[in-house]
Amino acid sequence: MSPTHKPNYFVDKGILKVPFNPVDDVFNSGNMTLCGNGYLGYRGTHPDWRKEQYMACTVTNTFDNADGKWKELCTVPNALYAKFQIEDEVLSAFSNKCNFYDHFLDSNYGITSGKGHWLSDKHGDVQMNWQRFASYKDLHLVVQHLKITSERGGLLQLTTGIDTEVWSLNGNHFNTASVGRSRDYFQCNIRTTEKSMPIYVMQGASGLVTNGKDVANEGGIFSEHEIHLKPGQPLCFTLYMTVYSQNDTAEPEEASKKSLLTAMNKGFDQLLAEHREEWDQKWSAAEIGIGGDDLANNLLRYNMYHNFIATPAHTDTQPIGARGLSCQAYQGAAFWDQEIYNLPMFLYTQPHVAKNLLTYRHKVINGAKAKAKALGYKGAYYPWISGDTGEELCPDHFFIDVISKRRIRNHFNDWQIHISPDISYTVMRYYQVTGDFDFLVERGAEILLEVAHFLHSRVHYNVYKDRYEILRVLGPDEYHENADNNTFTNVQAKYALEKALEVTNMLKEKQKGALKALLKKTEVTEDMLGQWHTIAHKMYIPQPDPKTHLIPQFDGYFELEDIRPMQLAERLLDESEYWGWPNGIAFETQVIKQADIVQLFVLHEYDKEVMKANYNYYEQRTHHRSSLSPGVHAIIAAQIGNLDQAYRYFLKSSLVDIANSHPPSSGGTFIGGVHTAACGIAWQIIVLGFAGFKQKGKLLQFQPSLPGHWTHVHFRLMIHGKSLMVFADSQSLTIESMEEDADFKIVCFDTEKKLKGKGKLVINRSSLSK
Amino acid sequence: MSPTHKPNYFVDKGILKVPFNPVDDVFNSGNMTLCGNGYLGYRGTHPDWRKEQYMACTVTNTFDNADGKWKELCTVPNALYAKFQIEDEVLSAFSNKCNFYDHFLDSNYGITSGKGHWLSDKHGDVQMNWQRFASYKDLHLVVQHLKITSERGGLLQLTTGIDTEVWSLNGNHFNTASVGRSRDYFQCNIRTTEKSMPIYVMQGASGLVTNGKDVANEGGIFSEHEIHLKPGQPLCFTLYMTVYSQNDTAEPEEASKKSLLTAMNKGFDQLLAEHREEWDQKWSAAEIGIGGDDLANNLLRYNMYHNFIATPAHTDTQPIGARGLSCQAYQGAAFWDQEIYNLPMFLYTQPHVAKNLLTYRHKVINGAKAKAKALGYKGAYYPWISGDTGEELCPDHFFIDVISKRRIRNHFNDWQIHISPDISYTVMRYYQVTGDFDFLVERGAEILLEVAHFLHSRVHYNVYKDRYEILRVLGPDEYHENADNNTFTNVQAKYALEKALEVTNMLKEKQKGALKALLKKTEVTEDMLGQWHTIAHKMYIPQPDPKTHLIPQFDGYFELEDIRPMQLAERLLDESEYWGWPNGIAFETQVIKQADIVQLFVLHEYDKEVMKANYNYYEQRTHHRSSLSPGVHAIIAAQIGNLDQAYRYFLKSSLVDIANSHPPSSGGTFIGGVHTAACGIAWQIIVLGFAGFKQKGKLLQFQPSLPGHWTHVHFRLMIHGKSLMVFADSQSLTIESMEEDADFKIVCFDTEKKLKGKGKLVINRSSLSK
Repeated sequence: MSPTHKPNYFVDKGILKVPFNPVDDVFNSGNMTLCGNGYLGYRGTHPDWRKEQYMACTVTNTFDNADGKWKELCTVPNALYAKFQIEDEVLSAFSNKCNFYDHFLDSNYGITSGKGHWLSDKHGDVQMNWQRFASYKDLHLVVQHLKITSERGGLLQLTTGIDTEVWSLNGNHFNTASVGRSRDYFQCNIRTTEKSMPIYVMQGASGLVTNGKDVANEGGIFSEHEIHLKPGQPLCFTLYMTVYSQNDTAEPEEASKKSLLTAMNKGFDQLLAEHREEWDQKWSAAEIGIGGDDLANNLLRYNMYHNFIATPAHTDTQPIGARGLSCQAYQGAAFWDQEIYNLPMFLYTQPHVAKNLLTYRHKVINGAKAKAKALGYKGAYYPWISGDTGEELCPDHFFIDVISKRRIRNHFNDWQIHISPDISYTVMRYYQVTGDFDFLVERGAEILLEVAHFLHSRVHYNVYKDRYEILRVLGPDEYHENADNNTFTNVQAKYALEKALEVTNMLKEKQKGALKALLKKTEVTEDMLGQWHTIAHKMYIPQPDPKTHLIPQFDGYFELEDIRPMQLAERLLDESEYWGWPNGIAFETQVIKQADIVQLFVLHEYDKEVMKANYNYYEQRTHHRSSLSPGVHAIIAAQIGNLDQAYRYFLKSSLVDIANSHPPSSGGTFIGGVHTAACGIAWQIIVLGFAGFKQKGKLLQFQPSLPGHWTHVHFRLMIHGKSLMVFADSQSLTIESMEEDADFKIVCFDTEKKLKGKGKLVINRSSLSK
Repeated sequence: MSPTHKPNYFVDKGILKVPFNPVDDVFNSGNMTLCGNGYLGYRGTHPDWRKEQYMACTVTNTFDNADGKWKELCTVPNALYAKFQIEDEVLSAFSNKCNFYDHFLDSNYGITSGKGHWLSDKHGDVQMNWQRFASYKDLHLVVQHLKITSERGGLLQLTTGIDTEVWSLNGNHFNTASVGRSRDYFQCNIRTTEKSMPIYVMQGASGLVTNGKDVANEGGIFSEHEIHLKPGQPLCFTLYMTVYSQNDTAEPEEASKKSLLTAMNKGFDQLLAEHREEWDQKWSAAEIGIGGDDLANNLLRYNMYHNFIATPAHTDTQPIGARGLSCQAYQGAAFWDQEIYNLPMFLYTQPHVAKNLLTYRHKVINGAKAKAKALGYKGAYYPWISGDTGEELCPDHFFIDVISKRRIRNHFNDWQIHISPDISYTVMRYYQVTGDFDFLVERGAEILLEVAHFLHSRVHYNVYKDRYEILRVLGPDEYHENADNNTFTNVQAKYALEKALEVTNMLKEKQKGALKALLKKTEVTEDMLGQWHTIAHKMYIPQPDPKTHLIPQFDGYFELEDIRPMQLAERLLDESEYWGWPNGIAFETQVIKQADIVQLFVLHEYDKEVMKANYNYYEQRTHHRSSLSPGVHAIIAAQIGNLDQAYRYFLKSSLVDIANSHPPSSGGTFIGGVHTAACGIAWQIIVLGFAGFKQKGKLLQFQPSLPGHWTHVHFRLMIHGKSLMVFADSQSLTIESMEEDADFKIVCFDTEKKLKGKGKLVINRSSLSK
C-alpha cells in the first residue's frame, strides 16, 4: 500500500463512513462502527437489525458459561430496537427500494449513525437518519435518536421495543427473560444461565406521540405505533436504553430505572453534550497528532478510539477483552494483549487507567494461583484467557482440525507461560513511569513475588550445562508449541525474577513490616529469594550469533525448514486450518505467526545491529496472522530507520479492522470482532516507534525518525505525575513542561539537556548528530 | 480364544501347514513359511513367484538407501526361480486347474516345502513337490529340490534361472544387475545403489538332463528346457543358490562360486543332513518342552525357530531386525526389541550369541555417539532403528496422517530415549548371568559409561522439588509422546547410572589401567561420576499409590480420559490411522499401545500387590497394537497367578504371525513381516513366566505356576557357564547339574537348597508353601 493510498471508508476528521454492502458487510460494519464506553459495547447495527445481522450489546462483568465450554460475556437484549414500514414497504437496508444505507462512526465522540434513503413509487423519497452513542457520562446508558421523512407522507408503521433475539456466540446466556411495561418504559429482566445473575435492561422513548400498542412475545416486548407522516415533515424521536446487572450494584433494577428516567428527563441534546465533554477530556489527556498526513491522523484516532471504548477504565475489577466489547469472541476476556498492547497508551497519558488494569490483575491473583496449583506449580500462573475471576478460561480444545473435524489439544492454556512475567514487567513499567511506590507495596509486589514463585517452580536446571532452562513453552509466536528456551520467555522470566528481588530489597529498606507480611502471605522464604537470585543469574538467554547477530527464537529454530509464508500457504488443504500445533503447515518450518524476537526489542534495549539483523530475518518469515504483529514491526522498523516498512506496517496494523484483513475464524473457532490490541498499539507506533521515546526514571530519550511526508508529530506524556507536551520533527525536539516541580533529563540527537520547572526546552539536530 | 482351540495351520511335531488361499495369503504365507539362517531369509514363496507375490531373499549387512529416505537391507535376485508349463498349461498356484497348493514349514529344521496338485483334461493329475532350506552349515547357501510328476506325461516347458525382479519395499537397490553364464552355473552381479557395494548371486542346478537354452534379459537370466515327461515318472532336480557380498569377504565372487560348486558336489541329501545336524545342536542347547499341550509346544517351537533364523548369530557386527530377515519392514534393523525380546533366550541358553549381539552394540557405539551429538547431548544415545553403523535410521517422518495425507513428525528418533539404558541393563544382565567380566572390561563398561554420560546430559534438575526428572520422552507405549517422567524410562535410567558407577568401582579395584584408559576415551571425569551418583540418588521415580498401588505411566497419566480400546476404536475415521502423536485418537486418553509399566515388572522386582494392581489396571487399557505387548502380559499374568490370562496372552503372542493378527501397515508405512520380538518372548513366557525363573548371581529362584492342563515344563539353562536342566510341575522342581563345579542356591516353594557339583536336586511343594 502506498503512503498516498486512502481507504474509501474515511471521509474526514475522525469520521468513518461505511458504505453498506449487504452481502459482505453485515458482520464487519457492526464492528467498525461500534460505540461503547468500557462498560458496554453496542455494535454498529441499524435499528431494525436482529441476531441474524449480529446485533449485540456486550456488557462487562457478565461472564457466563452457557454451553459448558466457553465462558464469555453476555450480550443483552436490545432496547433500542426500531422497525419502520410505510404501508407495505419495509424501510430496511435489505429492501430493493433502498438506494443507500450508510454507516458512520464519529471516532472523536463515539457516535454511530446511519443514513438511509429509499425510493418509493408511492411515497417518493424516504429518508431516515439515526444517531447513537454509549454515554461516557452514564456508562449504563445508550441513547439513539431517529428521524424519518417521507417526501409524500404516508402511514408509518413503527415498532419499537426490547428485542431479546440478539446474537450470542456460544449458547443462550439467559434462558429466562421476562418482559413488561412500567408506566413510561419497557423492562426486560434476565438471569444468566450459569449463576442466575440478574440483569435489567430498560427502554424509554421520547418524542413519540403515542405509546403504541404493546405486544409481548418470546422475542421481546414491543410497541406498535401507527403514525401519519406528513409530506416532507420529519418524525423525530429518541430511544433510551439502560443496563445494570447485579454485579454492578446491589439494586440493579432501581439503578437501571433511575438511570433511564434521568436520561429521559435530560433528553438527547443534553445527554450528547455531557457525553462529548467526557470525550474532550480523554482526547486532551491523550493529545497526539501527526503533521502532514490526514490518513495517518484519522487511523491513529480511530484506533485510539477503539482502545478507549474497549477499556473498562471505570473499574479495577474487569479486563480488556481481546475483541473489546465488540462481540463475545475470545470470551470478552484479557490476554497478554492487555498489558503489552492496550495498557501503554494509558500508562503514559492516563496512568490511573493503567493502575486499574494492574489492580484487576492483582484482584484476580487467586485465579492465577489456582491455575498454577492445578498444573503442579507454585505461585501465580496467569491465564491465557482471563475473565472476572482470573481463572483460566481457555478450554483444552480451542481449535479443531478442520480437515479431520477432530478437536485439537491446543496448549495455550498450559504452555504459554510468558503472560506471567509480562504482567510483572508491566507492573515494573507502571512503577518506573509513575513512581507510584504505594501501588508496589499494596499490590505490585505481591504480583511480582507470586510470579517469581511460579517461575521458580517452572524452570529446570540443566546440570550438564550449568544453566537454568524453561522447557516446553509456547512463545508469542503461536505456531511453535512445545519449544524449549523461547528467548522471549526466558528474557521476560529472568527480568521478572530480578525485579521481584529488586522490589523485595526496596521493601526491605522502606517497608519492613509490609515485606514480612507479604513473604508470609506468599509463602516465600529467604532461602527461596537466594535461589531466585541464582536462577536469574544462570537463566539461559540465547545470545546473538557473533557474526550474523541472529538470535534463535527457541532451541533449534534455525534448523527448521526455511520457507516463506506465501510459499507455505500453497500447502494448505483448507484455508481456515490452523497453521500451528499439532500438525499445521507451519509447525515444522521457520514461518512464525507473529513477532516474537522482534517483540522483545519493544520491551528491552538491544544493539541496533542486533535489532536490524533480526528484524530483517524474522520479518520475511512472519505470517502476521495475529493482528498483534504488524504494529510491533512498525515500531521496530521505525527504530532501526526502515521508514518505508515502518509506515507500511503502521497502515497494516491500523487498518486491520477497517480493511477487514483478518479472517473471522481459525481452526473452526470464531475470532472476529474489533482487534483491540492492534488499536492499542497505534499510539505506541507513533510515540515509541517514530518519535523513538524511551523512559528510564527521570531520563527521557527521543530519537525522532519520521516518514518523509510527515512534518512533525506531537503528543502529551504524563511521567512521574508531570504533564509534558512533546513536539518533534526530524530536525528538532521541543518539550514543554506544565509543572513547576518538573525535573527531567532529556536526551535527543546525541544531546542531553535538563528540563526543570515549567517551560519549553528545544534540542536541535546538530550536523554531527546521527 | 479357548485353551483348546487349535489353529488349522498346525499339523504335528513342529510342522506348519499353510493351505494356500491366493486371495488373502500371498503376502502372509511367505512370512509364515520363511526359511533362513541369520545370514539371509528366503520368503516362503513358490518357485515361480516373483515380486508381485512378494518374493524376496533378504540378506544381512547390505544396508542401502535407494529412495533417499529409508535405509534398508537389500533383497537379492532370486536364484531359485523355476516355472513349469506342460504344453499350454501353466502349473501355478493361481491356475484354475490348481486343485491345491499348500505350503509347509518344518520348524524343527527350517525346511519350507510346497505340494501342488493340478487336474488337467489332457495330462491327468500333475503333482509338484518342492523343498527348500537355507543352510546352517553354509550360511550363504539356499537349496531347493523339486519333483514333478504327470499322470499321463507330456512336454514340460521348464524355466529355471536367476530372477532379478524381486520385491523391494523402498526403491530399487541395484540399478545395475549384470547376468551371465559360467560353464556350470548362472551368475548375477549387482551393486547397491548408495555405496555401489558388489553382491554376487549364483545359481547351479543338478538333476536336469539339459542345460536348456539360455535367455538373458532385463528380468534376469534363465534357462529354457523342454523335457518329455514320461507318464507317472517323476522329474527330480535341485537348484542351488549362493550369495556373497563384499561386506562378507574381500573376494565375494570367488567365495560365492566356491560355495556353489561345493554344494553342487555334495547334492541335496548330504547338504540337508549337514543342515539338520546344526539344528539338532541348537535345539539341544535350547531344549525346552511343555507336557500335555501339543499346541503350546508347537507354538513355542515355531516362535523359537523364527527367533533363531532372525538372529545373525554368526557375527558380532549385525543386528536382529524387528521383522528379522522376513522382509525389509523396519529396515532390517534393530530396535530395543533385540535386547529385551530376542536376546534373553540366547542369554540363558547360548550366551555366546547374546555376547555377539551386545558386541554389535559396542562396535556401533560411534553411531550412537553421533546421534547424541547431533541432538545436543553427550555420550551414546542409541538409535530407535539401528543398522550396520548404529546411526539413527529412523526418518523424522515415519508415518503419515492418513486423513490429510500429510506426513507426521514422529518422535521415535529423538524422544524415545529408553533404548540406551535398556542396552546398559542388558549388558549388566549378560554379566550377571555369565559372569563374563572380560566382556565388561573390553566392551560393556564403555557402553555403560557412554550411556550414563548421555543420561547425565539429558536429565533436568527440578530445583523446586529437589529431584532429577526426564522430560519429553516417549516410553515403550508409543501412543503418548512428549511425556514427562515416564516411569519405565526413569527406572531404567537410574539403574543404568547406578550400574555405570558399580562397574566403574569394579574396574577401580581390578583393572585400574583399563579404567583410566576408558575414562579418558569416554571423556568422563571423576567429578562427573560424583554427579551421576547424585542424579541416580535423586532421580524421580513415581511411586505406587499407597492405597491403590497404582503407578502412573508418566506425569498426569491418570488425568487423561479413561476409555477402553474397543470403545476408542469407534472414533477412527480410517482404520489404518496411527493412534498416537500428534492427534491420534489415543493421545489424549489412557489407552496405551503396549505394555509400559507392566513391562517394567519383567525387568525389575516389584511387590506382588503392586504387580497385580497395575497389571489389572493397565491390561484393560492396553491396545496391544504392538506385537511386543501380549508376551509381556503373559509373563506377568503367570507371575501373579492369573493363569487363564497368562495362557491366553501366551497364545495371542505366539500366534501373531500365524493368525496374521497385526495389520501390515500403520499410518501409511509398511510394517508387515515376521514379528520377531513376539517370537523371541515365547521362551521367556515359559521360563520367566510359568516357571517363574529369576536369577541373581548364583541364586536361582523358581515359582512354577502352570496352566491346569500342563503336566510340566522342562528347559535347559546355562548360568555362569554351567549347564542345568530344569523340570518343573506344580508340586515339585527338579534341577539337574551337568557339571562337577556347579555351585548354586536354588529357591523354590519357599525352600532354599544348595546345588553343588553334578547331579539332581528335587524341591517339593510342602503343604505350607504358597
